[in-house]
Amino acid sequence: MRQTELFTKTRREAPKDEEAKNAKLLIRAGFINKEMAGIYDYLPLGLRVLDKIENIIRAEMNALGGQEISMSALQRRELWERGQNRWADDKLPWFKTKLKSGNELGLATTHEEPITNMLEQFISSYQNLPFSVYQFQTKFRNEERAKSGILRTREFLMKDMYSFSRTQDEHDRFYEQAKIAYRNIFNRVGIGDVTYLTLASGGSFSRYSHEFQTLTAAGEDTIYIKDEKKKEAVNKEVETPVGVPEKKAIEVGNIFSLGTKFSDPYLSFNDQAGKQQLVIMGCYGIGLGRLMGTVVEVLSDDKGVIWPREISPFDIHLLVLTEEAKNFTDEIYKTLTSQNITVLYDDRDLRAGEKFADADLIGIPARVVVGDKALKSKKLEIKDRATGGLKEMTIESLIKKLRK
Amino acid sequence: MRQTELFTKTRREAPKDEEAKNAKLLIRAGFINKEMAGIYDYLPLGLRVLDKIENIIRAEMNALGGQEISMSALQRRELWERGQNRWADDKLPWFKTKLKSGNELGLATTHEEPITNMLEQFISSYQNLPFSVYQFQTKFRNEERAKSGILRTREFLMKDMYSFSRTQDEHDRFYEQAKIAYRNIFNRVGIGDVTYLTLASGGSFSRYSHEFQTLTAAGEDTIYIKDEKKKEAVNKEVETPVGVPEKKAIEVGNIFSLGTKFSDPYLSFNDQAGKQQLVIMGCYGIGLGRLMGTVVEVLSDDKGVIWPREISPFDIHLLVLTEEAKNFTDEIYKTLTSQNITVLYDDRDLRAGEKFADADLIGIPARVVVGDKALKSKKLEIKDRATGGLKEMTIESLIKKLRK
Repeated sequence: MRQTELFTKTRREAPKDEEAKNAKLLIRAGFINKEMAGIYDYLPLGLRVLDKIENIIRAEMNALGGQEISMSALQRRELWERGQNRWADDKLPWFKTKLKSGNELGLATTHEEPITNMLEQFISSYQNLPFSVYQFQTKFRNEERAKSGILRTREFLMKDMYSFSRTQDEHDRFYEQAKIAYRNIFNRVGIGDVTYLTLASGGSFSRYSHEFQTLTAAGEDTIYIKDEKKKEAVNKEVETPVGVPEKKAIEVGNIFSLGTKFSDPYLSFNDQAGKQQLVIMGCYGIGLGRLMGTVVEVLSDDKGVIWPREISPFDIHLLVLTEEAKNFTDEIYKTLTSQNITVLYDDRDLRAGEKFADADLIGIPARVVVGDKALKSKKLEIKDRATGGLKEMTIESLIKKLRK
Repeated sequence: MRQTELFTKTRREAPKDEEAKNAKLLIRAGFINKEMAGIYDYLPLGLRVLDKIENIIRAEMNALGGQEISMSALQRRELWERGQNRWADDKLPWFKTKLKSGNELGLATTHEEPITNMLEQFISSYQNLPFSVYQFQTKFRNEERAKSGILRTREFLMKDMYSFSRTQDEHDRFYEQAKIAYRNIFNRVGIGDVTYLTLASGGSFSRYSHEFQTLTAAGEDTIYIKDEKKKEAVNKEVETPVGVPEKKAIEVGNIFSLGTKFSDPYLSFNDQAGKQQLVIMGCYGIGLGRLMGTVVEVLSDDKGVIWPREISPFDIHLLVLTEEAKNFTDEIYKTLTSQNITVLYDDRDLRAGEKFADADLIGIPARVVVGDKALKSKKLEIKDRATGGLKEMTIESLIKKLRK
């Protein structure tokens, strides 16, 4: 995409009403727009990152055998007044609204109750099980305060998966597979080396749950690292081991064994002996905006963001420095895009220094700068955003490298 | 996907609380689930159709140069109390909610006000224009009654595009291109031949607007066909021409010239002479669920849906009829999927008649039935869902045909 056509602009100054590094950088770079505290829009660059994160998660959920669905955000009060009875405002951070008839509805904070209700029609026999379903769906949470940028928002896209098993063993096997899928996701988005599988409280649903916690000073949680090699930790809420340093971390994913808390008495099946059994459930969440914000907290410097290649909004940031080099750079742009390499092309009439500063802020991992030198040599200089390292290569070698 | 693994099941009986054909068929076939009147979930088969529709629309919006964004559903009251002043419940079908502080928020019915507000920071000069942005975003509309299935719902995914131009001429050129893009979309989803560009009222924003109206008895609008060849019509609300038959139709898309109604006084730019001018706007909407429901109303028979190939949940419905043919059919399934052909594989232990009835109901356009005959001849019988026509071919010819 040509930067002269991109409607967003970068800003030199961070917005005064933001404390969080992720929001400051993402707003300055034109990735997001703040509607109000805790509520953000995704602009073209930001949405490209969010979509890439979504596709990575989708691939891993599909590999687990998950079936994708999309449930409504508007939820019936009756479903939340039964079972675990979570309709009250002190049980969940509800936003509520009303039909014209006056009947109250809730805005989705989570989906255990509607999903068990929906599945009653499809589960009757052991032959209908096991399976798992997932969705990318907008959740609404009426947070008291919202000051962590996109780490904790009042409206956010969440991947929530729910598993349905016949026995505890069957559930446990799926749960272990889900851990591996989550590990793959955090590796692929570039924060695997600072993300720990963390034993945490199970809240009111089970004794323990597992969180994936990413080390960052912006984190609201405190964890203790139990095994650096295996990337395992424990949340302070569970245990305070002696002689292990405390670390601040943010929860980027969680997985819960729900047992029969939500299936009882609604979701049951006849086993092979014809006996009625309750379905064993699990739930598995990742907030996509939070994950994107965590990447920014972890992978950035004072100049801007440093996107990992797999979730960068574009593969290449192409900068042209002189009027004379424009035709040559136009050709490079055409060649790269014709090879399905995505390019943000800074074709604006600006000084080189301004273009470099914007490129650092936006954070695309590979930068190609074309000035009079490249025009003469026909060699491209590739700069690595993370290391600052420079490499000269022909356009053919660049294409080969990116194709790997 | 193997049908033994798909968690949804078909139903013989239509739900008693549905009047609309689209909802009856889609619920029976397991594409959607009703949460309450006017609120539906998309199940795996339904979501696959919705995603295909989304990708067709996205391709056409990108071809127009549209930049994709995603704005929040929660909206600030202040933005709707300025300008056109549409905060009142008689102006828009609002769902409203409240922050813990007590401040009221609206749930997005549309986005003219937030988008002009967001863009103020990016538009100052004629050099920033023209451009267009679009999103696939969940809209909420507090409909009094909801009884048309997914044709008119209280929560739905909408593609809304907004254009920003410097002059009326520039706007008019974009508007004409948008008409063509819309025409392409309705052609590609299979209803082009019964969809009419219809002159309609512009409501409170302009004298006229344009709707794309699809002929169906389920439609709530009345149109008069002015030109059958050019597929042009006029809405009864604008004109009642003499000697032209009335037709019932449903609005599957609309495009509006907004002039400066929403930009005045917020969104302006300095023209080449340095004079401040208001931005000329347009908006362009398509409800994805409504479009899917319209396809079902138009393309179905008493046995079920007849999906056009471009939006069918799968390319092929593969049915195995006997135990003896299972291994052979497993191989066909593997071969087809390895060629990136999507296959719903009915590997269930059911009578042939039940499988045929389900296949008719689900409506995948091409059906491959494997029984003892195919097992011997190694030729596949392909049945066309729309015509009932049969063709014998080898698997290689089938792959070739689908690759076209």
